[in-house]
Amino acid sequence: MVDSADDNALLERTLESENVFRGRLLDVYRDKVVLPNGEVSIREYIRHNGAVCIVAQAKDGIIMERQFRYPAGRVVWEVPAGKLESSDEDPLEAAKRELREETGYTAGKWTSLGRLMPSVAYTTECIHMFLAEDLVPGSRDLDPDEFLNVYTVPNSELYDEINKGLIDDAKTIAAVLKSKIVLESR
Amino acid sequence: MVDSADDNALLERTLESENVFRGRLLDVYRDKVVLPNGEVSIREYIRHNGAVCIVAQAKDGIIMERQFRYPAGRVVWEVPAGKLESSDEDPLEAAKRELREETGYTAGKWTSLGRLMPSVAYTTECIHMFLAEDLVPGSRDLDPDEFLNVYTVPNSELYDEINKGLIDDAKTIAAVLKSKIVLESR
Repeated sequence: MVDSADDNALLERTLESENVFRGRLLDVYRDKVVLPNGEVSIREYIRHNGAVCIVAQAKDGIIMERQFRYPAGRVVWEVPAGKLESSDEDPLEAAKRELREETGYTAGKWTSLGRLMPSVAYTTECIHMFLAEDLVPGSRDLDPDEFLNVYTVPNSELYDEINKGLIDDAKTIAAVLKSKIVLESR
Repeated sequence: MVDSADDNALLERTLESENVFRGRLLDVYRDKVVLPNGEVSIREYIRHNGAVCIVAQAKDGIIMERQFRYPAGRVVWEVPAGKLESSDEDPLEAAKRELREETGYTAGKWTSLGRLMPSVAYTTECIHMFLAEDLVPGSRDLDPDEFLNVYTVPNSELYDEINKGLIDDAKTIAAVLKSKIVLESR
């Protein structure tokens, strides 16, 4: 449906790349690029190793977390998630680790829900989404500076909260609605 | 279901805030915070005015864009979207402007699809999502440095592409799946 010549007319080309801020979490670049019309412009963005998030389906609902998110200035409902330890870490291994560390659960069955770019305009981050089933409870293993509470929310209640706009975390909306499609298609 | 005392045990408190990078697009802060256990930590994040995105429903499908996204390094399928001009701009007015400028369409009927935080870990950005219907075509009004192509994708084809993982932009997945729920509930 899309003509590749049409896509080619949209491409940008890198002239220079500069690391303008390197913090503990954020690695910010400012690149000089050539636009399709030949003009030179600036692109500012974050380089990120990538992340995972997990819709963990228990018998009585979906495993959800409440965590204070500083940029939001409040406690946020989210599915379990975490960063890849390096850009070449296997996303499924990372998902298994993050689910166990944050919630204690291990899962007997894993299904990919695809991937998600949280903000294509200014971060390279890609989040790999998974559905985890056949859960076995265990003990959590949080980092000393990690504070989050774990809840099991019945599926119908969580879907209803998404529909009502009470859940606003992007990865959570996308992953839960995709997992619903997968579960209902079986 | 959630005890507010449990939430209170998760809160962080700001000690200091520093603007470590101010670019054309990105405004990056590094704040010193007190964690729930009394330890001091660092939070790095982007301050953002907020944005809008629009699921514009035409008779023969949903209005979609292809745009080169530098951080992704490729052309990306997205719903029309754009930044608020100030943090107190009315999101609906911004949505009307962005839809018209990027696609030429104006809409006779607007429905809120709620809001979305693309990345609660490191940006304050909140995207207000809308469903636009009763579309009337018109002429586009792109910025001189804006390059994007507009397509109409039949609903069933777009839903199928989301299910197959061919669409990975977070706001697009979330807004299209939420609009599907709204359209099917009528």
